[in-house]
Amino acid sequence: MELNLFDKQVYTNRRNILKNTIGADGIILLLGNEDSSMSYKDNCYPFRQDSSFLYYFGLDTPSIAAIIDTETGEEVIFGNELTIDDIVWTGTLPSVSEMAAMVGVAKTSPTDQIIHYVHKAQASGRRVHILPPYRPENKVKLASWLNISLNDVAEHVSLKLIKAVIAQRVIKSALEIEEMEKAVSISVDMQLAVIKNTAPSIKEYHLVAKALEVAQAANGRLGYPAIITTHGQTLHTHYYGNTLQEGRMVLSDIGAENNMHYGGDLTRTFPVGRSFTSRQKELYEVVLTAMDHAISMLKPGVRYKDIHLSACQKLAEGLVQVNLMKGDPAEIVAAGAHAMFFQCGLGHMLGMDTHDMEDLGEQYVGYTDALKKETEIFGLKSLRLGRELQSGFVLTVEPGIYIIPELIDRWQAEKKFTEFINYDVLNTYRDFGGIRIEDNFLITDTGSHLLGKYLPKTLKEIEALKG
Amino acid sequence: MELNLFDKQVYTNRRNILKNTIGADGIILLLGNEDSSMSYKDNCYPFRQDSSFLYYFGLDTPSIAAIIDTETGEEVIFGNELTIDDIVWTGTLPSVSEMAAMVGVAKTSPTDQIIHYVHKAQASGRRVHILPPYRPENKVKLASWLNISLNDVAEHVSLKLIKAVIAQRVIKSALEIEEMEKAVSISVDMQLAVIKNTAPSIKEYHLVAKALEVAQAANGRLGYPAIITTHGQTLHTHYYGNTLQEGRMVLSDIGAENNMHYGGDLTRTFPVGRSFTSRQKELYEVVLTAMDHAISMLKPGVRYKDIHLSACQKLAEGLVQVNLMKGDPAEIVAAGAHAMFFQCGLGHMLGMDTHDMEDLGEQYVGYTDALKKETEIFGLKSLRLGRELQSGFVLTVEPGIYIIPELIDRWQAEKKFTEFINYDVLNTYRDFGGIRIEDNFLITDTGSHLLGKYLPKTLKEIEALKG
Repeated sequence: MELNLFDKQVYTNRRNILKNTIGADGIILLLGNEDSSMSYKDNCYPFRQDSSFLYYFGLDTPSIAAIIDTETGEEVIFGNELTIDDIVWTGTLPSVSEMAAMVGVAKTSPTDQIIHYVHKAQASGRRVHILPPYRPENKVKLASWLNISLNDVAEHVSLKLIKAVIAQRVIKSALEIEEMEKAVSISVDMQLAVIKNTAPSIKEYHLVAKALEVAQAANGRLGYPAIITTHGQTLHTHYYGNTLQEGRMVLSDIGAENNMHYGGDLTRTFPVGRSFTSRQKELYEVVLTAMDHAISMLKPGVRYKDIHLSACQKLAEGLVQVNLMKGDPAEIVAAGAHAMFFQCGLGHMLGMDTHDMEDLGEQYVGYTDALKKETEIFGLKSLRLGRELQSGFVLTVEPGIYIIPELIDRWQAEKKFTEFINYDVLNTYRDFGGIRIEDNFLITDTGSHLLGKYLPKTLKEIEALKG
Repeated sequence: MELNLFDKQVYTNRRNILKNTIGADGIILLLGNEDSSMSYKDNCYPFRQDSSFLYYFGLDTPSIAAIIDTETGEEVIFGNELTIDDIVWTGTLPSVSEMAAMVGVAKTSPTDQIIHYVHKAQASGRRVHILPPYRPENKVKLASWLNISLNDVAEHVSLKLIKAVIAQRVIKSALEIEEMEKAVSISVDMQLAVIKNTAPSIKEYHLVAKALEVAQAANGRLGYPAIITTHGQTLHTHYYGNTLQEGRMVLSDIGAENNMHYGGDLTRTFPVGRSFTSRQKELYEVVLTAMDHAISMLKPGVRYKDIHLSACQKLAEGLVQVNLMKGDPAEIVAAGAHAMFFQCGLGHMLGMDTHDMEDLGEQYVGYTDALKKETEIFGLKSLRLGRELQSGFVLTVEPGIYIIPELIDRWQAEKKFTEFINYDVLNTYRDFGGIRIEDNFLITDTGSHLLGKYLPKTLKEIEALKG
């Protein structure tokens, strides 16, 4: 068995930068993930290592953890060696110390020693920096090691560590960009397979099968559950039981995670049959125009929130043109009326996590101390990225138009935004579905760079694929 | 979105039987599963409901639970209704009370009410029956509701409930067998795709891709992580990075879980190229002979442990014939020397879980009060099923021969079983790999029935597939 790793100097450098940022201030405790059970303990989902652990320690095996002493500089990887029973069942692996050496760590120790390191640090009044746990077993372990209740773990999370990790992970290195190019290109191949196999009377799950096959055949996997649906208005549906019908569209939002765990996140919307209907074409063009406008704005120094709002205005302009909305597009967006059609954000950071580092806190990943994330305004509260762009950011651009009957009914009953929304016309679109177009970009010094191979996105190009 | 359910009477009947078995004795608390996070909280693995929850309540949605009051007969399903935000992101679902009605339950309540039911029962000195939790979040919830420490949850598990659930789930109904036939037939199609696509110089993960595609295209999924490997000697390897080489074999152990969550579990071993080598043929025939012998013994009243031991003796006979072992086969098995080649058990119960109900306790699922599971003897300690067979059991038969270099080295250094093992010959097989052949059977009143479509298993049939 081979481990997928960068050169060990990469990890050593990353840890050195982290140590410099934190300064001489206690110990940093980073937990890897464990295997997650499906229907009984030993039947597990495919293992996914924690991304921050991968970033600093690279090792893609379950049940290991690490401590960095910011004062002595000592680094220790904790893990247990295989027994002969383990070898019979799961084969040989390098020893823990061999694996540690591959990522530049000299010292290893059995897992049950972590608690001694933690207690020793606590006893001498030193801080134990931890990241917020998103898996229950890691929360349980942290509570036990820190000798606090489960409810108190959140209070012990280190904001200093969170900010230091985000500052590093948010700027992608050349090595990382290379992996992301690969992951996005695999994602492109997945989309092509899905689009080409789409036809009337098959089920959505037949298309999911194609996406899975292409990802796995590239030694990858899905970075997030596939959204492949004729009900594109449902932003995150994972139901695949609908039968495809001529005249409708499929929205396919899929991405590969490659063997280094970097991911792509692409969406295309395309007809079940050979061509779009005229209504579909009209709204598709509205979304595509907003997307191209947003892409043209991508460069360092521009706030992504402004790009989002500008894209919303383009959507509003288009929606006015097709008579679904009325009034001044700027006023529509200022009032938030466009959120009838575009309920979510224009995009998010992308990396090893699809919503990169989401559990470190969207406020810290996508916003700044000066720019707080909205929590109340429908539309903006789902915008995961708002801050000024910097060279090295990788992000998605994914405008859309979603016709959600439940939302129409609710707002119409509340007589909400009747000055901007043509409810009569809108009600004739109730069965329309949804359109999203999404690509992935690296912010460069002067603008942006499309990651991965080009995936057709114009009406003509899409219809040509279906020919 | 459609829910996959049997008729509601099925679930009502199952719960009535459970109530009868438990008698008037407190309340039964059954937890459904929650979504499991991959690399951040909202990025989840495909949801898998708890199998016992599915068995009694059918509902395949996360974050619900149920209580059965064995004294009043009251049944309550706990869950929270969708908000408009939920609908925007994940679409509409039937309400909790609508879903409950579909499985014959009249009463529902928000999730946060569970604790009141539990406390009320405890306050009046009534027992709260729980099953052992295998997911950490469910363990945390149980500890909180029962007001006990995490370490004490295991002590509060109800053996009475465990035995009652096993007694029901272990005998498959006609409805369940129908689902298992489907699941096994999908598994057969997966195997055929894998075998036909096997060729020199491709990677193992290309074959995994075919298995995933076939399972998903049948609206199923893998019931357990695929084992598709040129290192068949490693019983549960999930590494797929090896390149296939002419002259070697592939061991493929894969199974579909269908949309009702019943599963198949099939293994075939076949050449990378068109044909087996003569050494491979010899050992394949040894395994197949043992398998056919075991199958011929399947019928109610026979202890599976005896079938296992009898199959081991057939393996030993064959291994003596090819000069890998020596001496009397019965003595070989009595001594346990065959475990150099066959380290695990002949099979296990199969149902909604691949190792059916494993976390309810192998002692209770596969053994009886009179027949205890071995815990020390290598080979027998991995035999998950030992008890007398009954009509309605579904199980696997999966003999194998595995050449594990690490085990050879260890035993040879210890001079273990030198009277039975020809280490000189064995060392010339160090790179052989492993062979397993596995099918799934229903125990009938008079014998057994092969589940699913027939999957080629003789040398000739396998080579014909590769032609």
